[in-house]
Amino acid sequence: MMSLCLFSMVSMVWGSSPIKGNQAPGFFRLMVGEVEVTALLDGSISFEPAILRNTTPLLIKMLWDRAGILSAEAPASVNAFLINTGKKLILIDTGNGNGSGSESSSLLENLRESGYQAAEIDAVLLTHAHGDHIGGLLNRNGERSFPNAVVFLSRAENDFWLSAENAAKVRPEKRKSFARVRAIAAAYQKFDAWKTFEPGTELFPDLKAEAAYGHTIGHTVYLLSSGRQEIMFVGDCIHNAAAQFPRPSIGVRFDVDITRAIETRIALFARIAREHLLMAGAHLAFPGIGRIRAEGRGFVWLPVTFGPVKTGK
Amino acid sequence: MMSLCLFSMVSMVWGSSPIKGNQAPGFFRLMVGEVEVTALLDGSISFEPAILRNTTPLLIKMLWDRAGILSAEAPASVNAFLINTGKKLILIDTGNGNGSGSESSSLLENLRESGYQAAEIDAVLLTHAHGDHIGGLLNRNGERSFPNAVVFLSRAENDFWLSAENAAKVRPEKRKSFARVRAIAAAYQKFDAWKTFEPGTELFPDLKAEAAYGHTIGHTVYLLSSGRQEIMFVGDCIHNAAAQFPRPSIGVRFDVDITRAIETRIALFARIAREHLLMAGAHLAFPGIGRIRAEGRGFVWLPVTFGPVKTGK
Repeated sequence: MMSLCLFSMVSMVWGSSPIKGNQAPGFFRLMVGEVEVTALLDGSISFEPAILRNTTPLLIKMLWDRAGILSAEAPASVNAFLINTGKKLILIDTGNGNGSGSESSSLLENLRESGYQAAEIDAVLLTHAHGDHIGGLLNRNGERSFPNAVVFLSRAENDFWLSAENAAKVRPEKRKSFARVRAIAAAYQKFDAWKTFEPGTELFPDLKAEAAYGHTIGHTVYLLSSGRQEIMFVGDCIHNAAAQFPRPSIGVRFDVDITRAIETRIALFARIAREHLLMAGAHLAFPGIGRIRAEGRGFVWLPVTFGPVKTGK
Repeated sequence: MMSLCLFSMVSMVWGSSPIKGNQAPGFFRLMVGEVEVTALLDGSISFEPAILRNTTPLLIKMLWDRAGILSAEAPASVNAFLINTGKKLILIDTGNGNGSGSESSSLLENLRESGYQAAEIDAVLLTHAHGDHIGGLLNRNGERSFPNAVVFLSRAENDFWLSAENAAKVRPEKRKSFARVRAIAAAYQKFDAWKTFEPGTELFPDLKAEAAYGHTIGHTVYLLSSGRQEIMFVGDCIHNAAAQFPRPSIGVRFDVDITRAIETRIALFARIAREHLLMAGAHLAFPGIGRIRAEGRGFVWLPVTFGPVKTGK
């Protein structure tokens, strides 16, 4: 083994290979029937156990241990999803954006890496108006990030956030959120590019909005159908996979109406599992796309496999 | 809702947005202590149920259903792993390569996408000498793909495949595999760049080879340690995650000694779970890196989360 030891020693002395430190581009593509869906990573976040409600620290510890979470906080992603129907480019949610201070949003970079430009986007469908879903609509200068897109928000969500009365009622530190939604809406309204709708509407062919209220007043999910395949974009119906899949009765601090949010999640997930739908989540680990199956009191998450995009017949 | 319907109809008529069809680059990076590990996708494959042994069709169906496999074959990946110690670039396995006919190997492309060149690789550690692990060592012209690398193979594996006596004993259709190993070894031997070792050896600082015989005569796993973190590169100790994690007593047709392969898997996985090691598999869904925990008669796979590379202290 003399030659081996010599090799090791020589390599210790002579070698120099700088660590790269960069991650692969944050996009992931799959076909749903004849429609292309691209998951876009906006950022990586983590949740502390204290965001979880209707549970106990002991149960959370047990569930997080089972999911292999060794750190004090659970890793999560901020995802948006781009739909290319072959005719139109439709973006579901927009991430945090860089307009609101210190956040570092990578949505536009990953959109470009995936081969598209922001100006090509025809429509933006919002699940709700929290900052990590609508923030990406404006750039640092307060201008539209998607200058050719029409933005869609459910009427209930729109009316809640744009109500001067509601903004006046909340605690001062929450007023910023209302002001942010107002500024974003105004930037698009100026170009007649801000639309509201009633859930139940087919906004585009084979793309239907459905009410999934609870997390917010007008939280909306979107169901895309093509061929025999369907994918449900569930927005913030789930935040912490490790806890809320096995125990969907666990809520989060951000839920405006936690009881309704829990009912919505359980009913929606039961249907997604029963009908074998694909599911895409805004905060599930990137790319956040997979299927679920019912097990015990909850569900098991089955993420998609990375591989070539299967286009064509 | 008039404006909405109009919008939809206009978009149907006017829009045109070609489907991209490409996937994101197949590399994924994480730090293990101060060492950078990059998973590299060589290709995407699928396994038919018939490759599984020591089981029944009914059990496989049950296990595949639980894993959400809706197709007749289970998707899998061919992964290789690049270690950058800061001093040396060490590649574990090399994928199928393009030298042997129809296979389409993307290892070198993904290596470049990840920021490295084939000529920079200092060493290649092989888990065993099957074609989808050693094929990438030669290019289409039969020349070395890694002209500055020294290749390491366990002595048992080397002696089995390079034995003229063994090659003469096998059925004619298997002789090609022996000839391929001989050709690959010869190309590196010519430059004194083909080394054998006894498992148990620390081939490089903090990088140790360990015998994991069974799948082949001299199948080897590699344990990398840095700081308080460790990652075990398990090669072909597992092929079908859906079946062999929950039931590690299920073997595969490719196992030369299936009983020993099963014993090896169970002992190795028990240790990886107990010691909370990271684990990297050649055929687990890309990037093929995660942790496992013991549950019931087997193990649960907990893949890593996509996110920024955490370098530094």
